[in-house]
Amino acid sequence: MWSAIGAVIPFTQRRAKSVSALGETQLIAAIRRWLGAASPRAPFGMGDDCAVLPAGHRPQLFTVDPVIYGEHFDNTVPPRGVGEKLFKRNLSDIAAMGGRPRAAVVALALDPRMRLAWLEGFYLGLTAVSRRYGVPIVGGDVARHDGGIVATMTLVGEATGSRVVTRTGARAGDWIFVTGVLGGSLASGHHWKFSPRLAEGAWLAGRREVRAMLDVSDGLAKDLRALTPPGAEPALDAAALPLRRGCDMRAALCDGEDYELVFVVTGKTDTAEFLRAWRRSFPRTRLSCIGKFARCGARPAGALNLEDYHGFEHLR
Amino acid sequence: MWSAIGAVIPFTQRRAKSVSALGETQLIAAIRRWLGAASPRAPFGMGDDCAVLPAGHRPQLFTVDPVIYGEHFDNTVPPRGVGEKLFKRNLSDIAAMGGRPRAAVVALALDPRMRLAWLEGFYLGLTAVSRRYGVPIVGGDVARHDGGIVATMTLVGEATGSRVVTRTGARAGDWIFVTGVLGGSLASGHHWKFSPRLAEGAWLAGRREVRAMLDVSDGLAKDLRALTPPGAEPALDAAALPLRRGCDMRAALCDGEDYELVFVVTGKTDTAEFLRAWRRSFPRTRLSCIGKFARCGARPAGALNLEDYHGFEHLR
Repeated sequence: MWSAIGAVIPFTQRRAKSVSALGETQLIAAIRRWLGAASPRAPFGMGDDCAVLPAGHRPQLFTVDPVIYGEHFDNTVPPRGVGEKLFKRNLSDIAAMGGRPRAAVVALALDPRMRLAWLEGFYLGLTAVSRRYGVPIVGGDVARHDGGIVATMTLVGEATGSRVVTRTGARAGDWIFVTGVLGGSLASGHHWKFSPRLAEGAWLAGRREVRAMLDVSDGLAKDLRALTPPGAEPALDAAALPLRRGCDMRAALCDGEDYELVFVVTGKTDTAEFLRAWRRSFPRTRLSCIGKFARCGARPAGALNLEDYHGFEHLR
Repeated sequence: MWSAIGAVIPFTQRRAKSVSALGETQLIAAIRRWLGAASPRAPFGMGDDCAVLPAGHRPQLFTVDPVIYGEHFDNTVPPRGVGEKLFKRNLSDIAAMGGRPRAAVVALALDPRMRLAWLEGFYLGLTAVSRRYGVPIVGGDVARHDGGIVATMTLVGEATGSRVVTRTGARAGDWIFVTGVLGGSLASGHHWKFSPRLAEGAWLAGRREVRAMLDVSDGLAKDLRALTPPGAEPALDAAALPLRRGCDMRAALCDGEDYELVFVVTGKTDTAEFLRAWRRSFPRTRLSCIGKFARCGARPAGALNLEDYHGFEHLR
């Protein structure tokens, strides 16, 4: 049942090795074991009707994202990678507001034929990310879902300083930056191997020249629209786009699942000085100034026309 | 495609009437329309990487529960009822801690053949509950899931007073109470028609004699174990069990999905006086004292032996 590259099919015909051999009560006990210290005791963790979090004194953040078998992962992603991906794509949303994650809950809809070994790997992936970023898993739900696997995580977080950075606030004339490299997320395995840009997002929220931010999930060409102010259009410099090795510009603009931060700084910013400040804080995270927002119709000659590119459109 | 009792099958073969006719961007626009005032504008609602909630000054509550096609609902439940059930079963978890709900997010995994009319009904159900209880839907996710429907809601809430009521704290000698009537939830439609006991839960959290509480989801026989302190066992009075019309004792103990509150008050409590105080506050919500916790091995003659009954065990 193991494929050549070590991935494991989530389902088994051997009942003794499946979730149905345990049933709900024993399965929840196993999940607690797998989570270990990543899950505090009730009422601050699993085991009551709700988890209890201490009152927060800053604006709270609240986000949800799933991983679905056949959509966000397949048999080529190891179960541990699936758990890591679920956690990290939610962390990336907190990073995109410049926030700090506080606690997570996980709801799992699964087929009773699901392989216990697969599920253990999945939870060990969650546990590893929980430990790495110091975010406890405080609750969840396990329910039967014949024929599928849907794991949904919800994260609560909070602002790291006095503000959160939203998608709104860019103006014509502002500079556009992006972290890391773009494109080829699926083929390279980046879609589950990436690191959420939490430290970078928090640093950016502390810089007054940063006006707006998001993380790239459906491709820069699509996601940039959400940052674009009314009456403006992005004017990107094709040569400045940071491409993953082996990727062309179309891949960088359209593939999606980059989980990099795109943000906007005021047009008055000294971009060279900004890049130097960045490198002092994040010497290992590439940062690229990829263009500006221009007034509609005033896109400079040579700037990319993003209307020729489309990001990932779900549910088509 | 409509069944005799007015329910609607969630899927259609006619593409023009399905989710895939819209695609993600237009679908999200439709969802915003259906939610209307139930969803505030970003960043306090849908449309950014996270929703932003003002800082809370009380302990925060955090809970998640799904509804899954084929498990929590089928074609006999109208789509509006499915949305209501999803919201209310999460509200019931907040009620069971004596809390107040603050905000909800909804992640939807759906087949592209899903009927738009069904989905509209589902969201109108969510909207109705949002309005009734004053709880905004501040975010969510929509993703493709061939062959299934999994809708997962996460709620954040907060304590209504200085404390939340957990499942822990009962002692031998304490009285056991239950709200409403039990059993027959599926046949009667109670499983989606119920009202979460939010006002009752908050009132109980304000009474010092209340030591522990939960809501009945898998049947009293199973759920009562979570309230039972070490070295004790429940001693129930069969005649005191509040049965739904047409239900026998086994149904009341085992059916589940009652969404009633079970709670424990100190053995010193004057139960007659407690019941009078209850009726002054909740004249229309039945409350029954159904027994006590006895020391292990000291169950009075005639008390029910709960070991003969089992609640609903998932994933078997």
